[in-house]
Amino acid sequence: MFTAEQIASIINARIEGDANASVRSFSRIEDAKPGDLSFLANPKYEEFLYTSKASVIIINQNFELKQPVPATLLRAADPYSSFATLLKLYQEHKNSLTIGIEENAYVSEKAEIGENVYIGAFAYISDGVKIGKNAKIFPGVFLGKQVEVGENTELFPNVVIYNECKIGNNCTVHSGTVIGADGFGFAPQQDGTFQKVPQIGNVLIEDNVEIGANTTIDRATIGSTTIKSGAKIDNLVQIAHNAEIGPNTVIAAQAGISGSTKLGRNIMIGGQAGLVGHIHIADFVRINAQSGVSKSILEQKKAVTGTPAFDYSAALRSQSVARRLPELEQRIIELEKLVKSLKKR
Amino acid sequence: MFTAEQIASIINARIEGDANASVRSFSRIEDAKPGDLSFLANPKYEEFLYTSKASVIIINQNFELKQPVPATLLRAADPYSSFATLLKLYQEHKNSLTIGIEENAYVSEKAEIGENVYIGAFAYISDGVKIGKNAKIFPGVFLGKQVEVGENTELFPNVVIYNECKIGNNCTVHSGTVIGADGFGFAPQQDGTFQKVPQIGNVLIEDNVEIGANTTIDRATIGSTTIKSGAKIDNLVQIAHNAEIGPNTVIAAQAGISGSTKLGRNIMIGGQAGLVGHIHIADFVRINAQSGVSKSILEQKKAVTGTPAFDYSAALRSQSVARRLPELEQRIIELEKLVKSLKKR
Amino acid sequence: MFTAEQIASIINARIEGDANASVRSFSRIEDAKPGDLSFLANPKYEEFLYTSKASVIIINQNFELKQPVPATLLRAADPYSSFATLLKLYQEHKNSLTIGIEENAYVSEKAEIGENVYIGAFAYISDGVKIGKNAKIFPGVFLGKQVEVGENTELFPNVVIYNECKIGNNCTVHSGTVIGADGFGFAPQQDGTFQKVPQIGNVLIEDNVEIGANTTIDRATIGSTTIKSGAKIDNLVQIAHNAEIGPNTVIAAQAGISGSTKLGRNIMIGGQAGLVGHIHIADFVRINAQSGVSKSILEQKKAVTGTPAFDYSAALRSQSVARRLPELEQRIIELEKLVKSLKKR
Repeated sequence: MFTAEQIASIINARIEGDANASVRSFSRIEDAKPGDLSFLANPKYEEFLYTSKASVIIINQNFELKQPVPATLLRAADPYSSFATLLKLYQEHKNSLTIGIEENAYVSEKAEIGENVYIGAFAYISDGVKIGKNAKIFPGVFLGKQVEVGENTELFPNVVIYNECKIGNNCTVHSGTVIGADGFGFAPQQDGTFQKVPQIGNVLIEDNVEIGANTTIDRATIGSTTIKSGAKIDNLVQIAHNAEIGPNTVIAAQAGISGSTKLGRNIMIGGQAGLVGHIHIADFVRINAQSGVSKSILEQKKAVTGTPAFDYSAALRSQSVARRLPELEQRIIELEKLVKSLKKR
Repeated sequence: MFTAEQIASIINARIEGDANASVRSFSRIEDAKPGDLSFLANPKYEEFLYTSKASVIIINQNFELKQPVPATLLRAADPYSSFATLLKLYQEHKNSLTIGIEENAYVSEKAEIGENVYIGAFAYISDGVKIGKNAKIFPGVFLGKQVEVGENTELFPNVVIYNECKIGNNCTVHSGTVIGADGFGFAPQQDGTFQKVPQIGNVLIEDNVEIGANTTIDRATIGSTTIKSGAKIDNLVQIAHNAEIGPNTVIAAQAGISGSTKLGRNIMIGGQAGLVGHIHIADFVRINAQSGVSKSILEQKKAVTGTPAFDYSAALRSQSVARRLPELEQRIIELEKLVKSLKKR
Repeated sequence: MFTAEQIASIINARIEGDANASVRSFSRIEDAKPGDLSFLANPKYEEFLYTSKASVIIINQNFELKQPVPATLLRAADPYSSFATLLKLYQEHKNSLTIGIEENAYVSEKAEIGENVYIGAFAYISDGVKIGKNAKIFPGVFLGKQVEVGENTELFPNVVIYNECKIGNNCTVHSGTVIGADGFGFAPQQDGTFQKVPQIGNVLIEDNVEIGANTTIDRATIGSTTIKSGAKIDNLVQIAHNAEIGPNTVIAAQAGISGSTKLGRNIMIGGQAGLVGHIHIADFVRINAQSGVSKSILEQKKAVTGTPAFDYSAALRSQSVARRLPELEQRIIELEKLVKSLKKR
């Protein structure tokens, strides 16, 4: 149980209303009960602000109220980040520390395991693996030969990391994700069959990277497939061999990055978007969901959409006309008739 | 070995032809052999009806034959459902009951396991888990703390359920599916990095839900990501945090539902379709394969297609004109020339 | 350490430059160091040929140099295949043979295991399984009852093969892939619920097939879902029940093939493409990335793109006009004005 005042001091917020209002759990603004702490970040949900039963609500310091609000308000510079901070404190408090190697894990004698590491049952740690301190390797995880896992990194159940791949510090990889499977490389032969091109590179993941569930990141043919520091990758994403994902770049679920494509920093890629191979994407570019990007985008901060993807605003205008195409065709037919009759005159 | 007469009595069908014709296995109508039982539901396959070597074929009670059929016909109200009923009987007969806990499974002493449950080797059952009677937990499944699995539910090999998620009765989850991994929530910071928003909610799956292989259903930020009773979800589907899937809604493979989007009941979503976050879809709506839905659809039974998705029939008309765009442009050029010459007159 | 001369004799190449130049590792042409062997296959990378620090570079026998090249050149008929051959030799040399059954694997007494097979810890081999000689079953793999795995086939960690499915010789299946889960078949009922149609068929995979990570191939309702000899399937691909993939057909990541669709030989399917069910695709057809194929393609070697997919060249022309639609509409408005004023005259 915390008071509005205590919370305000943690997140450095200004109190508006009863400073003694107390909360004991978190809730979304639309279904909050008395005793809940909530927040408003997306203006789409403003209507709930005036009716919410939450006891305390975090809102933007500059937000202008259209009506009185029953809850105590905490005004913060960034309500979403403030809420995230509180959730993190709650979670840390709740999760007791799990450490040690469970009985049924297989850990090679030739592996180096840091201090306070957790290794769950049925995890398989091969020869030459190095695991940094405080890392958590959940049950059923497979680490191939010479794999390196950094400090504080968490690998959730059934993650597979193929031999020689490296994961940095403070990373999170969710269940079922496969890192370092062979890139998709085959040389066509005269008789119509394909010769496999062995994939002898690896995957290199820097620090502070989060990767969702059932994502696949293939090893390089030669060299490394690279995920730079701070990148965030959602579920069911495909990243092909020799791709490079820049720092803080965010890739939503089911998007696919083809081989050898290089992404700059702080790019946003929407769900189900696809990028062809061997192209470059400049920093801060935004690629809309389901777009198909077939060429390099060299202009920073450019926004694109569609298949093939082009300028976002222009594409929206074209899409809007495209919906009225049958009407447009009708107007052309009318014009043709009129012009024909004018010609006869 | 069963006769047409015996089968007719099970599925309540009318016999047309030799009631003593006997069958011993199932087959598709296009590759059936003598002694096979088959069915015709999709009229696309009608041609095979007249040439099929099947001994017995189930067809619709009102189906009008264009030619004589060599097989014995069983006329039923719903041939596909009748065939499904027979397959189910066959499968139940064939699968001997597997129960008990295999030697190499890890089952916490603090877990509650119902009667007649099967737990395979290398399955990991954490503290506080509850498993209902007759459930089957196949090898390599991971159940996090406080997970609940209902009666008769089957979790196929290597399914992962994160802590605190709940699965109802009579559910099936296929291999590699991950339920309850963290939702994709990050608060952007001034320096371009992202702060993780802890995901402290869970996933709630009601009864009679079937989920395919390698699908991902993320836990809610707060509250629950919910899959309602009778929903059917195919392989490689992404369901993001705080989404809600209504009763009997069907989602085909590789479709993606973004965060906080709410789907009503008996909706059909085609393969590779994508829905943005924070929208509502009304009951009985149909969303075509590969559509991109960017706005709420509040009209029940509406059918949509395309990216961005709009009315199905209108979209087909627009697509048809879109294919002839180069010709349309040519006609505009012709008109421009003609009008120019008319102006000169 | 090998000399250019030694390598030339292995891949049957003509030497241009210092035959004694020696190499000790492989590198991409754009980041090669002295002592590296590289190759040029994609002309996009030609610029690096003239500046690369590689000691030896394999290029096409007919390639015309625009400038002098510092490296020793090996001229071969097919540089990519030659490079693949060398990588394969390197990999075979490096990987020491792993054989035997690890302690924590579960192997049924009713399974038949060939000579020199490797079975990793936490792998689960059910009753009636047959594994051919030299096969490698990595940790955490699940093989259901009566599964057959051919000679020299490799199943990477956490692959799941459901009962009765068959994998041929010399196949590779990467981690997390699920073969033989139930097809997605449900018969709609009067009350809005769905009755499951049991899937009693299997999956049949012929020889020399490679399948990526986290792909799903569903078992047939009845009969077999079939992957023919030499097919190559990338990561996160969905192949539905009763589909048939022809010999040497190549399917890129995240593509989806719906139920009962039949693909001929040597087809190329781009990433994220989708095919509806119950259609036929002729030999040597090419389907572009993200295409949506809604009808059979019966003409061999046809190339298609778009959703719905049609002729590749025509589609590109239409797409190009589609981008200029707002301009086209403007021209129609101008024409309408002009014609109106002409009419008044």
